Amino acid sequence: MTGMPPAFEEALRRGKARWEAYGDRRYLRLADDFRGHPKGAVCWNGLVVAGYPHIGRIFRLEQGLAQQFAAPFWVEEKIDGFNIRIFRSAGEVFALTRSGYVCPFATDRVADFVDPQIFEAEPDLILCAELAGPDNPYTQGGPSFVKEDVELFVFDMMRVGSSDFLPQAEKQDLCARYSLPVPRGFGRFVAADWERVRGIVEQLDTEGREGVVIKEDAPAGPRTKFVTAWSVVYDIAVRAADTVELPGDFFTGRILRMALYLDEAGRTVDSGLERDLGRAFLQGLTASVERFKRDGRVYHDFRCRFRRRENAVALMEHLQAILGHTHVMQTRLEQAGGYWVLEFVKEVPKLTGLLHQLFRGALVED
Amino acid sequence: MTGMPPAFEEALRRGKARWEAYGDRRYLRLADDFRGHPKGAVCWNGLVVAGYPHIGRIFRLEQGLAQQFAAPFWVEEKIDGFNIRIFRSAGEVFALTRSGYVCPFATDRVADFVDPQIFEAEPDLILCAELAGPDNPYTQGGPSFVKEDVELFVFDMMRVGSSDFLPQAEKQDLCARYSLPVPRGFGRFVAADWERVRGIVEQLDTEGREGVVIKEDAPAGPRTKFVTAWSVVYDIAVRAADTVELPGDFFTGRILRMALYLDEAGRTVDSGLERDLGRAFLQGLTASVERFKRDGRVYHDFRCRFRRRENAVALMEHLQAILGHTHVMQTRLEQAGGYWVLEFVKEVPKLTGLLHQLFRGALVED
Repeated sequence: MTGMPPAFEEALRRGKARWEAYGDRRYLRLADDFRGHPKGAVCWNGLVVAGYPHIGRIFRLEQGLAQQFAAPFWVEEKIDGFNIRIFRSAGEVFALTRSGYVCPFATDRVADFVDPQIFEAEPDLILCAELAGPDNPYTQGGPSFVKEDVELFVFDMMRVGSSDFLPQAEKQDLCARYSLPVPRGFGRFVAADWERVRGIVEQLDTEGREGVVIKEDAPAGPRTKFVTAWSVVYDIAVRAADTVELPGDFFTGRILRMALYLDEAGRTVDSGLERDLGRAFLQGLTASVERFKRDGRVYHDFRCRFRRRENAVALMEHLQAILGHTHVMQTRLEQAGGYWVLEFVKEVPKLTGLLHQLFRGALVED
Repeated sequence: MTGMPPAFEEALRRGKARWEAYGDRRYLRLADDFRGHPKGAVCWNGLVVAGYPHIGRIFRLEQGLAQQFAAPFWVEEKIDGFNIRIFRSAGEVFALTRSGYVCPFATDRVADFVDPQIFEAEPDLILCAELAGPDNPYTQGGPSFVKEDVELFVFDMMRVGSSDFLPQAEKQDLCARYSLPVPRGFGRFVAADWERVRGIVEQLDTEGREGVVIKEDAPAGPRTKFVTAWSVVYDIAVRAADTVELPGDFFTGRILRMALYLDEAGRTVDSGLERDLGRAFLQGLTASVERFKRDGRVYHDFRCRFRRRENAVALMEHLQAILGHTHVMQTRLEQAGGYWVLEFVKEVPKLTGLLHQLFRGALVED
């Protein structure tokens, strides 16, 4: 192990960084934001992989673009998956989650999507990407256009030791040269083009897609995201079953988002949208109640595919360490279609506990 | 002023009780639960008006009744208004809010609903009642069957100096003798009758009513409430505009309530109910956004009628003291139809502030 950068040394002393392990490799992970470094930064053999910064959201396109962007910006599709950073060390490629854990699943599957030659030519490159699709180990659902398994979308690049993003032209060039999969790009705009941007988002809304990420083309320039009304209904449908696990404003913030979106788009609320929203709330929760009555607990089902069996085992261990051993249970691990197919359930513990009480006839004070 | 009961003395020392004024009368109000006394208890000239206890809620009728009630219980309609306690002191009748403030509005209007002779015969009687209807100063909306102004519903009685409720028979007798308005009563049941109780609640659901309160007939016996699926949609519709002011679980708790209600009633979610729920969420917020765009602030409109002008003035002063002077604004006070008609607006300050930011194009981190 080579030297540790001073910021990590201090974070470690203050309990803001922790040692983690992936197989027999050890690395340091920033468990909280620290001195301007976003949570999830990793120190790996003395090299720093910066954390992926949080991107704020605007609720109004016209005023939001004017307020946030003095310079031109790129608009690209926002993909609803989980954020990873892919890097190479000592000839091996690893993928980190947003929180800075090595993800055994993403690490296993990167080779399906990324030509390893890119790291021969650019050894200090970090690919920032979304791994998205129904067969992922973290989130329910995924983009409507990924019908099975997962797909990878590279949307940013950094270099080891820096938190700056590569310029758009350099990123696009590398993506093209190595045939990296990327999200749809809609081009370069200025704030005064907001109606054209709205047109793009409205089209995405019609197609049942999440929205856009908007990025000034500068190493640490402003960025923001803006999502469709459709995404609000979708988020609520996917997370309704987790109602009591989520922060209270998860749902109300989204409905406000939808109200402002529709207002700016000049749309009125129609009964189809009302029905979709009500259904989003009720279906997931109704399914959870059914599940509880059947199994005595509320579970979410997960499935994902691995190239190597040991990575499936490592993922289960990782999830059990993070979520608690009693809340994650493997139900299947076998070879099929050239992969190791892992299936497991995650308990929704707060909702399980609450339903236990309510079905016993408990009083609730509210 | 006569002596002060020891519990109030200690509460005052510990900052749990406060001196309040109504005109030139001063009284002591329990501002928090204290040593088993519910918040809202009042010490008035040395006499104690107990606080109205909180009533917990069950989400499942079958198990809830079995769990909570070993003895027979009465079932009566739950009325969606605001809770008051009416008492007499030195020849005058006053009405307290749940929090223990003298309510100038309720105090003014009691004489429209209660024969004062009852306090001649029973000077230490306290009437626990709901004042409900669209023209009230505290809550948006009201029961669907009160089309204008307010109506009073007496549902419990206590005596000065005691927190016990009068037995059901004595209460019913007094209500009948003095023609007091009461909520619908459905009779006396035991837990094994839960399907009959469900039938009552299902009928209320069909009629667009809130639900029932269930009370064992004993001075401090168990009590609970159970509400309809309709009430969930109604609550959300009425409060959606206040989204960001409410605790996060206000909405999610209600949707869980609905899911469990429908499950127990053996009903499936139909698209009409889905549409109603989605509409409940969207209409209030959409109206708030419209209001903000028009007035630069989000307001709720209130109107109520008084017999005496000075009570309208006292109410405005009371609300401004509680909510802050900038958030309550009188818009009309004039005689009409034999009453003083007061109209005012209350600002929804958090939502106003948030919409200000969002319409300016602010970034929101979530």
